[in-house]
Amino acid sequence: MGSTCAPINVEFINPFLTCTINVFRTMAGCELTRGKPYLREGNEPAHEISGVIGLSGKAIGTVVLSLGEPVALKVTAAMLGEEPPELNGDVSDTIGELTNMIAGSAKAQLEHLAMSVSLPSVIMGRNHRVAFPGDIKPVAIPFESQWGPICVEVGLREQIG
Amino acid sequence: MGSTCAPINVEFINPFLTCTINVFRTMAGCELTRGKPYLREGNEPAHEISGVIGLSGKAIGTVVLSLGEPVALKVTAAMLGEEPPELNGDVSDTIGELTNMIAGSAKAQLEHLAMSVSLPSVIMGRNHRVAFPGDIKPVAIPFESQWGPICVEVGLREQIG
Repeated sequence: MGSTCAPINVEFINPFLTCTINVFRTMAGCELTRGKPYLREGNEPAHEISGVIGLSGKAIGTVVLSLGEPVALKVTAAMLGEEPPELNGDVSDTIGELTNMIAGSAKAQLEHLAMSVSLPSVIMGRNHRVAFPGDIKPVAIPFESQWGPICVEVGLREQIG
Repeated sequence: MGSTCAPINVEFINPFLTCTINVFRTMAGCELTRGKPYLREGNEPAHEISGVIGLSGKAIGTVVLSLGEPVALKVTAAMLGEEPPELNGDVSDTIGELTNMIAGSAKAQLEHLAMSVSLPSVIMGRNHRVAFPGDIKPVAIPFESQWGPICVEVGLREQIG
């Protein structure tokens, strides 16, 4: 990459990709089509809503589930049985829980890294950006759903020792 | 609280309060005056920049360091020796690192919870909001500095078993 940035191990990415598809299918009946994962170089704005959760163990990391308002409302409706009138606490709880499930099931597939997940937090706001530490280039995995685009970003650093 | 929300143990808050003061003093020569901690009930907008880091172990949690653009630029200048022209990667790395130091030194004082920290991420964007899970009421600790207000929010849940 022409930088001092640690290369990400591709084997780490696949569990997040498959777990995102499985979680959306199981929890919201929502079929995702995956796009091509890429290294996020810049700091382009995320979608309007970002679920953020930390991982720590033999690797430390952050997972961000990012999606726009229409998708967030439809996914919440699919999970709760009623469409929320706006981006309220039901929506943030739903997106936080989906983020938690994706990170939780992916880390179970990365057992050798012995990671545990933190509490999720959910960011809402037009044009917000989520920056990772400068020495981490997160991998962005784009998905399409019937309600609009979704993106999962994963930054991980293996701990030394 | 009239809700099902788990009460936060106040002993958990003091380490974050003292560590924030120590980290800003040591790293940026910035003296903070603490305000009165309170339970954050609503979802009011954070300051423009939020450093977010996860904790996991016998408790899981999230720590958010929130501050406005002028404070973030001055703190970065104090730490790097040069004021950045805008909210660039130097600023996000600095705020992420401060968040990491606050969480890292506070968890060392909460040794019985055996927590480890995740990677920090840094959110930038006017009027963004950071939501915690609905069953967690984070404690907000406000501070004043010579450059403007700073807030640290801590949400923690002890793990059962």
